[in-house]
Amino acid sequence: MDVYLDYQSAKPVDRRVIDAMLPYLYYKFGNPSSLHQVGDVATEILESSRETISAFVGAQKDEIIFTSGATESNNLAIIGYALRNKNKGNHIVIAEIEHISIHNIAKYLEKNGFVISKIPVDQFGIVKIDKLAERITDKTILISVGYANNEIGTVQDIATIGTFCREKKIALHTDAVAAEGLIPIDVARDKIDLMTLSSNDVYGPRGLGVMYLRNGIRINPLTIGGGQERGLRSGTENIPAIAGMKRAVEIIQKEMPEETERFQRFRDRMIKEVLTSIPRCYLNGHPINRLPNNAHFRFDGIEGESLLLSFKDKNIAVSTGSACSSKTLEPSHTLIALGLLHEEAHGSLEITFGRFNEESDVDTVLDVLPEIVKRLRKLSPLYKEEV
Amino acid sequence: MDVYLDYQSAKPVDRRVIDAMLPYLYYKFGNPSSLHQVGDVATEILESSRETISAFVGAQKDEIIFTSGATESNNLAIIGYALRNKNKGNHIVIAEIEHISIHNIAKYLEKNGFVISKIPVDQFGIVKIDKLAERITDKTILISVGYANNEIGTVQDIATIGTFCREKKIALHTDAVAAEGLIPIDVARDKIDLMTLSSNDVYGPRGLGVMYLRNGIRINPLTIGGGQERGLRSGTENIPAIAGMKRAVEIIQKEMPEETERFQRFRDRMIKEVLTSIPRCYLNGHPINRLPNNAHFRFDGIEGESLLLSFKDKNIAVSTGSACSSKTLEPSHTLIALGLLHEEAHGSLEITFGRFNEESDVDTVLDVLPEIVKRLRKLSPLYKEEV
Repeated sequence: MDVYLDYQSAKPVDRRVIDAMLPYLYYKFGNPSSLHQVGDVATEILESSRETISAFVGAQKDEIIFTSGATESNNLAIIGYALRNKNKGNHIVIAEIEHISIHNIAKYLEKNGFVISKIPVDQFGIVKIDKLAERITDKTILISVGYANNEIGTVQDIATIGTFCREKKIALHTDAVAAEGLIPIDVARDKIDLMTLSSNDVYGPRGLGVMYLRNGIRINPLTIGGGQERGLRSGTENIPAIAGMKRAVEIIQKEMPEETERFQRFRDRMIKEVLTSIPRCYLNGHPINRLPNNAHFRFDGIEGESLLLSFKDKNIAVSTGSACSSKTLEPSHTLIALGLLHEEAHGSLEITFGRFNEESDVDTVLDVLPEIVKRLRKLSPLYKEEV
Repeated sequence: MDVYLDYQSAKPVDRRVIDAMLPYLYYKFGNPSSLHQVGDVATEILESSRETISAFVGAQKDEIIFTSGATESNNLAIIGYALRNKNKGNHIVIAEIEHISIHNIAKYLEKNGFVISKIPVDQFGIVKIDKLAERITDKTILISVGYANNEIGTVQDIATIGTFCREKKIALHTDAVAAEGLIPIDVARDKIDLMTLSSNDVYGPRGLGVMYLRNGIRINPLTIGGGQERGLRSGTENIPAIAGMKRAVEIIQKEMPEETERFQRFRDRMIKEVLTSIPRCYLNGHPINRLPNNAHFRFDGIEGESLLLSFKDKNIAVSTGSACSSKTLEPSHTLIALGLLHEEAHGSLEITFGRFNEESDVDTVLDVLPEIVKRLRKLSPLYKEEV
């Protein structure tokens, strides 16, 4: 692969993180439940990683629960909270533009006696507090709104939503996977009750996620077993990954200001030049409140899939939206929620920058994109140039 | 750590496995759902690992579901099967000596309308088919019996239990984590319907498990999301770990005969010399049908915890039983199920050999154990030497 611009779908693990993991793979391989030194070493790194991660998001150490990834954290937060608190009400609110895993969790809960409302967003993907207020009832127990959207990059005003939820005594869950490491998150400032994080999204290893659970908030466990993670997530702890995520968080905490400034420079140049060099091309998502690494376009008269394959031919990895639905032919539900037509949603291109991109990657895309768009439009029965 | 003899609690990752994982951590880091080359590479290793693992246990490729570990596989197999098939009956049978995670899953199902029976075992930990036959009713939908016990090492006659289950049209789940890589498993020969495997138990990375699901057997998913693993286990696949487990299985498949013969030699010498050199010491588990790497003793008048700490002082890692309950003061439920008294169960020592043990590790234990037992017995109010 020559140019990788799909950091929202997957990230490489930082080499410094791998270095931090290797001892735990090679010889510090203990089970924290064991009563010997190999076990003690495992317990030490487990608790020290918990501490580093909690500090990163303004949480207390014991508010961090390790899971196997973001999807599991979303399940545990939403289903675990719903099942535990159903005596208080059966109404849950999510935003229309949530990640597919949240929509599917909502569908599952609907089949199990819960009522789900989906809050519409404006044309930029912003959840409006008045729309949210309209939806809630005295049965509402939980609101789930992503911190930032993984496709269009729109960043929500979580602090305002958090203040609203706290006033109404409704729990707030936020899937912060798209935002973590790109914008500063503070669970206290933002008044978040439950939050999903992933290790890979800060250049840590896959197969590890975190659920932040505010002290005092009660949930049911979904994985039953040996009672690890305060009984909320059983299963032997994935110590090498936990050691890796600690290192990943330490690195990103230090480098975030410089790194995100660089992404923003790439992003701004990309957006500016694409919009000026290609006719009938538009930016999806919010023009200002967007992730520093996200550029998301749509092109009249073009199929996203052909766009992707044209990039693939040139060894450039980009996305049309969520990797989780890239292989289906459905248009992105996020773009539909913005009010786009199906054919508009289909003609989208998502570029996400990451740690290992260079200015020359921007050049490469700017070199090839106008040509690709032109060629595909020539083949398109939908596209007629207005002369 | 000088001597590690607690391979049932945790295993190091084989260096050859780490070498196989590194490319997937460094640069082949894609998301299999992505439509570009980095994604294609991920899909390739995902399917090729599935193939290797299926061949290892005599399964079809599409019968292998990746999970985050053995505990999750146990949850998915038992809870997933129970919820999906509750229209056929609500009775589930497990063995008394199952791993704590299975007992806790059973407890969870009991709270949710299922009826659980626990089959007793004989003094060696063997599940008898007549005891099993007595327990089943026309409401019985699932039987879960571990392939081998992780504490006492007793190996069940799963093929006989499988034949019985198939005749009675009851699904059979087996937690094969303690047995995998130590005795040959064949799901077709053994007539297994659902099976739990873990990656670390074959010297692969942590945070990855497998659930074998026989074609035609239906379960409910427990983790909802993007629909990975045929919709049965959502969440981006842990590709580096999946690549690692493939390599781990390739290695163990080749080396198992030589390796287990070596373990058996260590084990037999250990058992013989401990039983002859220490008075009032007994072997727990079956004298013949036991894992090749497992030696499990009990000593009159000794507390297992003091025994462990004495070994810890000498930099020798051993266990008293399941690591999952090592930190509680409860005696092992497995030992109680054998008919042992609480004080007998408390005086136990488990030694499990693994890939990196040498003959000299046996010497070390044989050197120090008699002395430790003697000293602890002197301190014990329970122990009176018969003169």
